[in-house]
Amino acid sequence: MRATLIYGAGDIRVEEVPDPVLREPTDAIVRVVRSCICGSDLWPYASMPADSGPRRIGHEFLGVVEDIGSDVATLRRGDLVVAPFVWADNTCDFCREGLHTSCRHGGGWGAPHVDGGQGEAVRVPQAQGTLVKLPVTEDSALLPSLLTLSDVFSTGHHCAIKADVGPRTTVTVIGDGAVGLSAVLAAKRLGAEQIILMGRHKDRTDLGRDFGATDVVAERGAEGVAKVRDLTRGDGTHAVLECVGLMEAIETAFGVVRPGGVVSRVGVPQYDQAPVGRVMWAPNVTLTGGPAPARAYIEELLPDVLDGRVEPGRVFDRTIGFDGVPDGYRAMADREAIKVLIEP
Amino acid sequence: MRATLIYGAGDIRVEEVPDPVLREPTDAIVRVVRSCICGSDLWPYASMPADSGPRRIGHEFLGVVEDIGSDVATLRRGDLVVAPFVWADNTCDFCREGLHTSCRHGGGWGAPHVDGGQGEAVRVPQAQGTLVKLPVTEDSALLPSLLTLSDVFSTGHHCAIKADVGPRTTVTVIGDGAVGLSAVLAAKRLGAEQIILMGRHKDRTDLGRDFGATDVVAERGAEGVAKVRDLTRGDGTHAVLECVGLMEAIETAFGVVRPGGVVSRVGVPQYDQAPVGRVMWAPNVTLTGGPAPARAYIEELLPDVLDGRVEPGRVFDRTIGFDGVPDGYRAMADREAIKVLIEP
Repeated sequence: MRATLIYGAGDIRVEEVPDPVLREPTDAIVRVVRSCICGSDLWPYASMPADSGPRRIGHEFLGVVEDIGSDVATLRRGDLVVAPFVWADNTCDFCREGLHTSCRHGGGWGAPHVDGGQGEAVRVPQAQGTLVKLPVTEDSALLPSLLTLSDVFSTGHHCAIKADVGPRTTVTVIGDGAVGLSAVLAAKRLGAEQIILMGRHKDRTDLGRDFGATDVVAERGAEGVAKVRDLTRGDGTHAVLECVGLMEAIETAFGVVRPGGVVSRVGVPQYDQAPVGRVMWAPNVTLTGGPAPARAYIEELLPDVLDGRVEPGRVFDRTIGFDGVPDGYRAMADREAIKVLIEP
Repeated sequence: MRATLIYGAGDIRVEEVPDPVLREPTDAIVRVVRSCICGSDLWPYASMPADSGPRRIGHEFLGVVEDIGSDVATLRRGDLVVAPFVWADNTCDFCREGLHTSCRHGGGWGAPHVDGGQGEAVRVPQAQGTLVKLPVTEDSALLPSLLTLSDVFSTGHHCAIKADVGPRTTVTVIGDGAVGLSAVLAAKRLGAEQIILMGRHKDRTDLGRDFGATDVVAERGAEGVAKVRDLTRGDGTHAVLECVGLMEAIETAFGVVRPGGVVSRVGVPQYDQAPVGRVMWAPNVTLTGGPAPARAYIEELLPDVLDGRVEPGRVFDRTIGFDGVPDGYRAMADREAIKVLIEP
């Protein structure tokens, strides 16, 4: 089969690799119907040393079950399923608490001996715990939105949930990438009263307004902080959804959060230390977030996607085949595309 | 009257100052019956530059109302009252949300033109919102425990509340000072299943065991982290109550917190930056806490103090008069005393 490998910064290749086979009785083999490129894939695409590769890449996919191990009781060949961006047994204590990203028997796609999501097929470990059956066929127009349950919409939802977003909450979303836009949509779905989107790409912030942003702030740094404060009677917002991961973004977050509020972050931090001393302590600000346990949210979000109440798949603004994957990375890195869908 | 002033590091003096008088119709004058020295007073005692003083100091007191302004409707002369460690109107939006430390019309004791708590009397701004009447007389044996509602027990409670401590929660408390011991007591009161106290002063950790600690870890740094992990099947605890404020303590906190858990801190941070990058993000750890809005908790905690279910006043292990205040600071700084009570 064909699969995507990253050899180093800027070096993405689609190559022939061995077809996956069942190894454990808890495995399933899934033929990939839709996959995509994630903003977090752009970090290794920007900086991975050439001597540390090649490795498989991609962690978002939906597809059809082709084979199952003997311990997989809840899936059948032919089922259309979505995979969360980590695999997990869904039975350990962490999973039962909804923290599938810390599953005692789980792991990530593209790790050694584990397929990546940007390929024609995937061996899925812990298949019964990991995969969620979708009640549609593989020609459904909903596939892009259903694919976002794998990561990007679940991640926006996680960001909002960890920040206690609900009715009467005021929210700032930092970042107009696919995760930021998903966070806007999630905050709107949870009933937020005011959603200020900080972003400077008009095509993206326009989609953000469609998703529920009440205000857009294009300025950055101190000027952006001042604008958000102007929009909130000087106070800042109860929730700040930090969807970038850079130091500048977390500094902005502390600048626009209301006393007693929450900064929730889902962008992979590109910093080790951050200014969380008295500036955050004195106003009783909380810092939370992390990788989204998408598996914990899929059943809850699925009905709203199926009946069209939310359309998170609108973050995909380009569709490619496998030959286009290297250029898809380039397009996302160059901000030509918000998020790229792969149709094998 | 006599009051305590700090002139600089190591330089505490008790001097004659003008008697307080009503300035605003919302003021009250309180004759101090009990006051005390706080661990946070030791930060300026350790490092305040000599040319930035003198200023009044002390922020924990209870006493008798001697005079009230014309807008104070709920208090009478002769009432015994306790003051939280910040004054607040108790009516603004922040106060209604329970965040009196961010009151729109509040402030701190010992600020310019505001008396400190370590004096014979105090002018109390926003007296109706600030002061809480105590249903005992000034010869009550409960005064030490009631005084802890002003700060130290309320602070331990805040630390535990922000960390979501409840039944089935496992807890690590970092620090065996008066705040750490109060956090142990608060966690026990909230039903915590396991309470590991990290501290190396046996007299203090013995009191911690009396307060509800199930385990004591005397080791610090990596060794201390390993011990806590040994006690928690390798996982760490759901809640970590960081009651010190030093970088070493916050690093230990991140070392002993369970994935998905909460680090709650109430010690004034003595650092600007802290390691909150991927080490905290990947396991979805939350960092929270800040100065305790004691006013929000006093009514809730008061019944348990009045009927003796909790005895937070046991953190006081030395009682002094005003002449002894300078030596009281020295004794706390030298770890001779856990917390010093002042009986004017």
